[in-house]
Amino acid sequence: MKPFMDENFLLSTETAQELYHEFAEKMPVLDYHCHINPQEIAEDRKFDTITQVWLGGDHYKWRQMRSNGVDEYYITGDAPDREKFQKWAETLEKAIGNPLYHWSHLELQRFFGYHGVLNGDTAEEVWNLCNAKLQEDSMSVRNLIRQSNVTLICTTDDPADDLRWHKMIDEDDSFEVQVLPAWRPDKAMNLEKPDYIEYLDKLGKAADMEIKSFKDLRAALSKRMAFFDEMGCRASDHALEYVMYAPASDAEIEDIFTERLMGAQISREDELKFKTAFMMFVAGEYTKLGWAMQLHYGCKRDNNTTMYKKLGPDTGYDCINNYAPSSETADFLNALNEAGNLPKTILYSLNPNDDEALGTILGCFQNSDAIGKIQQGSAWWFNDNKTGMMKQMTSLANLGLLGNFNGMLTDSRSFLSYPRHEYFRRILCELIGGWVENGEYPKDMKSLEKIIKGISYNNAVRYFGFNLETKY
Amino acid sequence: MKPFMDENFLLSTETAQELYHEFAEKMPVLDYHCHINPQEIAEDRKFDTITQVWLGGDHYKWRQMRSNGVDEYYITGDAPDREKFQKWAETLEKAIGNPLYHWSHLELQRFFGYHGVLNGDTAEEVWNLCNAKLQEDSMSVRNLIRQSNVTLICTTDDPADDLRWHKMIDEDDSFEVQVLPAWRPDKAMNLEKPDYIEYLDKLGKAADMEIKSFKDLRAALSKRMAFFDEMGCRASDHALEYVMYAPASDAEIEDIFTERLMGAQISREDELKFKTAFMMFVAGEYTKLGWAMQLHYGCKRDNNTTMYKKLGPDTGYDCINNYAPSSETADFLNALNEAGNLPKTILYSLNPNDDEALGTILGCFQNSDAIGKIQQGSAWWFNDNKTGMMKQMTSLANLGLLGNFNGMLTDSRSFLSYPRHEYFRRILCELIGGWVENGEYPKDMKSLEKIIKGISYNNAVRYFGFNLETKY
Amino acid sequence: MKPFMDENFLLSTETAQELYHEFAEKMPVLDYHCHINPQEIAEDRKFDTITQVWLGGDHYKWRQMRSNGVDEYYITGDAPDREKFQKWAETLEKAIGNPLYHWSHLELQRFFGYHGVLNGDTAEEVWNLCNAKLQEDSMSVRNLIRQSNVTLICTTDDPADDLRWHKMIDEDDSFEVQVLPAWRPDKAMNLEKPDYIEYLDKLGKAADMEIKSFKDLRAALSKRMAFFDEMGCRASDHALEYVMYAPASDAEIEDIFTERLMGAQISREDELKFKTAFMMFVAGEYTKLGWAMQLHYGCKRDNNTTMYKKLGPDTGYDCINNYAPSSETADFLNALNEAGNLPKTILYSLNPNDDEALGTILGCFQNSDAIGKIQQGSAWWFNDNKTGMMKQMTSLANLGLLGNFNGMLTDSRSFLSYPRHEYFRRILCELIGGWVENGEYPKDMKSLEKIIKGISYNNAVRYFGFNLETKY
Repeated sequence: MKPFMDENFLLSTETAQELYHEFAEKMPVLDYHCHINPQEIAEDRKFDTITQVWLGGDHYKWRQMRSNGVDEYYITGDAPDREKFQKWAETLEKAIGNPLYHWSHLELQRFFGYHGVLNGDTAEEVWNLCNAKLQEDSMSVRNLIRQSNVTLICTTDDPADDLRWHKMIDEDDSFEVQVLPAWRPDKAMNLEKPDYIEYLDKLGKAADMEIKSFKDLRAALSKRMAFFDEMGCRASDHALEYVMYAPASDAEIEDIFTERLMGAQISREDELKFKTAFMMFVAGEYTKLGWAMQLHYGCKRDNNTTMYKKLGPDTGYDCINNYAPSSETADFLNALNEAGNLPKTILYSLNPNDDEALGTILGCFQNSDAIGKIQQGSAWWFNDNKTGMMKQMTSLANLGLLGNFNGMLTDSRSFLSYPRHEYFRRILCELIGGWVENGEYPKDMKSLEKIIKGISYNNAVRYFGFNLETKY
Repeated sequence: MKPFMDENFLLSTETAQELYHEFAEKMPVLDYHCHINPQEIAEDRKFDTITQVWLGGDHYKWRQMRSNGVDEYYITGDAPDREKFQKWAETLEKAIGNPLYHWSHLELQRFFGYHGVLNGDTAEEVWNLCNAKLQEDSMSVRNLIRQSNVTLICTTDDPADDLRWHKMIDEDDSFEVQVLPAWRPDKAMNLEKPDYIEYLDKLGKAADMEIKSFKDLRAALSKRMAFFDEMGCRASDHALEYVMYAPASDAEIEDIFTERLMGAQISREDELKFKTAFMMFVAGEYTKLGWAMQLHYGCKRDNNTTMYKKLGPDTGYDCINNYAPSSETADFLNALNEAGNLPKTILYSLNPNDDEALGTILGCFQNSDAIGKIQQGSAWWFNDNKTGMMKQMTSLANLGLLGNFNGMLTDSRSFLSYPRHEYFRRILCELIGGWVENGEYPKDMKSLEKIIKGISYNNAVRYFGFNLETKY
Repeated sequence: MKPFMDENFLLSTETAQELYHEFAEKMPVLDYHCHINPQEIAEDRKFDTITQVWLGGDHYKWRQMRSNGVDEYYITGDAPDREKFQKWAETLEKAIGNPLYHWSHLELQRFFGYHGVLNGDTAEEVWNLCNAKLQEDSMSVRNLIRQSNVTLICTTDDPADDLRWHKMIDEDDSFEVQVLPAWRPDKAMNLEKPDYIEYLDKLGKAADMEIKSFKDLRAALSKRMAFFDEMGCRASDHALEYVMYAPASDAEIEDIFTERLMGAQISREDELKFKTAFMMFVAGEYTKLGWAMQLHYGCKRDNNTTMYKKLGPDTGYDCINNYAPSSETADFLNALNEAGNLPKTILYSLNPNDDEALGTILGCFQNSDAIGKIQQGSAWWFNDNKTGMMKQMTSLANLGLLGNFNGMLTDSRSFLSYPRHEYFRRILCELIGGWVENGEYPKDMKSLEKIIKGISYNNAVRYFGFNLETKY
């Protein structure tokens, strides 16, 4: 029996252990997609209690507490931090097999030096230990990033954002980690939202122009993209219901946009046409700028209206949407490709059933523009666990070249979440080590080093074209 | 190599064996959903031959015999029992990897003390042994239930049923196991069926009123629910094509119902609206009564018309229906929740691809009304095997709190099927034991005992609110 | 650690090794579905370079090279063979976990006696070795087939084909392996294609009649089927988007066909009706002839228009189509069954998510017409790897009788691809051996021999009714 979460956690074979400790563990972290707040880096925020860090905004944990019948008072309500922490500790005990169990204990081990088990009985001890530790300078946001061996972070930013915090971090010579913006123009695309016109106004101001037509919108976006590019942006990101393809003429799109500006209700059909046109436009711009296009899809958000009214979005009420016709995804990429407008693209579906269809779509649009030009993103959100990662990487390996995979990102709001890269790398080494142990790949350490270090770090450095060195 | 189906069957690690023998094996059986006939309990039926028990109504076995090219004469036809048994034994030999192989041998071991292998060569020996054993008093229906350590059974009953057999069992002091009705109002919902009006007449008589409107139907159902509740009912059950959501106004629903009463053909759209309204109504009633709502969906029934005409329903001609938009499931639960009408709910999809979407939907509607208020049901019917159970529990663990899972039910028509609980518990212990052995969860026997005993028995006791004690 | 791809490759337990070496390895190969060119057998073609054999037409390999950012010049372009081979060798190194890694090394071991590892460094050595070997007589097409222990091959042929090469092979006493045509009438069904009328003309000439109506088309097809049957054909094959069911009257179908003949655009709805009618007709004919009907579906082809215009079809631009309602598949088979027109049928979906739904559909139409009358085909194309095969066979075992499975086919264009049968059999033995080792099936070597030899060879001999002996 292996001990609980020791240095060989998740590494069941000798080769897996060797690959991890020799290669993967030593690589820096490149977090090319996350949701952390750059202001907290700029200000080098510190935290008072472990409840603040862990339960302040982490809807993954909130969901589990609700599953345990915990009253909302102890989750997002006004309960004292200590009581909230107790409820979480008691919940965690039942989360056997859940990635939160592992993430939480990895964070306790790596950042707080606690190697015990968190549950209802130990909550008091852990509470005291963590809160004491949090007072140390080493636990400021910047130091958490540093001790995690992070070289570069991409945040997620709205086109109208002035990126002031990025500027401030960039100009601050005392912090050596790159913090770059990533372009997320969802609000500019989602014309069905009630506050769309308000948003256009904001975007127009940021671009210093009025938006009266789709042509104007495109111009405003181009201006903002130029600004983001100057600020070091190398990637865009989109939250899509699914990767749709509903082509329409330019005139039709202008009509839809005009109608929307005049306050009309837009039909579902017109919405899909507009969004297709929007995506076709921005993809072309990304191609010119050499940016990667990240498409996150397969999510149905804010499903609990009662709680949405109380807590707003991103509070733990989202689910997988299983509608995503692979035919439209393929047709969309084909249309871009035919127009010479297909950028480097990373596709993330929230539905793990899409792995295989996605894996076969990738292969239809690869070419010599880039190594692994079209990628399937690492197992995302609800799939961000051993099962999901194993499935995604096995599917990728079966259908394409795992050796070119860009690997992990945190997708997180927390500065304690970098151990998810460790978690991923352990699973990667377990998978590949298992193949080697089983005689399915030769124990050629030169090849294996390239593959493991590539997926851990180097592939992403090269793929996005960051100003970083690959490491061997 | 492990011996064939010995006491450590399916338990490959020491921890798995320990968890099973120390905790799981000792727990009673709570069979909260099955299709046994209460009359057979009331009358304490005995069986003449093993063919009668095994092949009299088990369409799982019939399907396999047909897959083996066996003539219907030996399946549902007039062949002598001994010959039917021979065909089954010869079929079983080819069913390598099939749960029927394991269920059959578990039943032979547990009820008949036969530890050999059933195949064409041993059929005669097994036939003689089983038939002799069946003559013993210990093999009456009640004694089969007793020796399986069952504390409570929920049958599946129509609202118009007078529950006379349940009453008789309840009043019979010589039988200590609780046999409760469960409410299954499919016939009251399926207005597209040719015999719907006939059924309404029957239901009206049971409720002592005339049903001339949807309002009347609701009233009749409420009266019958009150009666079921008095009789100890704690759960409803529904067979749905999929969990749909097609909202409509009350007036619209009344119109659809009236049209149907007058014999009109109902459009598919109106059918979905009516069914949505029906479900919204009963769910509200369940909430008031504190009943759990079980939704079984993803099945397309009676696909072989030729055989349906000969044999009727439930004869082995059903398949998985892969149409089940997760968006409608989420919207339906949301509508109930907003109206304060969302009861404790258990969702079972016949399509294993739905596991992950379902697991994420659950999380959107959990709250402090109950621990694990919204549940995913145990791997159902075609998924009721090691693969399906492992997948369902792993998915559940990844996405929610496995520790709160209600666990197994037989869903069976047979009094020999209680070893399916044993089968499930072995797989549960193998899964959890594997995690512990692999260092993914600490070997904390206190926590593990709570989890294993909870999933085996105690969670269901607490969830449904049965008049039973939890066991530690 | 197991050595790289030795004699016990993929066989991790003693029982697996025993089953493979005692039973599976010794069986001949029956390749009942492939895409090889019979002319090359008739002419006993030889190859000049390994690039010609491996990269001349293998779009599986082309996809991986494109995924590696290789320029098309080295793939389908005019680069020298040696350079193309280098690019392939460098790509292969990154294909860890990909079946091409195993297929390529199996081919190097079995046909070229090379037991090393192919990568960029060894490419020169392998190039020289393979090209020298290819000059030997033992490496002609016929001798490759002979040394692979093949007894029978079914090609894939158009109804208008004169089958001259099949005739020539059949009449050539110096070649003992049966090479039979298989009937693939896609072009006669796909009335939406621009060259449909041209095709009908060709088909009419082959059938020596004019095709002016759907009735004529049916007559022409029947004549050609009679010819194929005379030529030894025992199986048909269809490439379908999905297994649809859109019934229509005979008159409606005649109208659609007539409109198409007159050059009209056919609506999607009418296309589906026509195709349903077409399939219902040919299925009835297959039933009369005792042919098996193979349905390959779930593919979206030629997704990269730019490359399609350059390279045509089957060049590596296809993907999984995830639209395939199981309800229509069931309804189609039911309609055939009711009409007495359901032949032996093998269903292959390209979407692995369909495994379970398919497995349950099979069971609805089994009867005593044949053992395992309705089959799920072996893991196809993108699923033709350890993961896909394990999943398909596990699903089949859970839902039906694995013992009756027809097993493997190459589906290949290459004469070096017979080791895929070896690959499959190793995985089969690993799966079944694992169950035996785990106590899930008794170590009854008589039963296991029947099952392993059946799936490896005998089941297909019996199922299709080939003029071959089963082997024990």
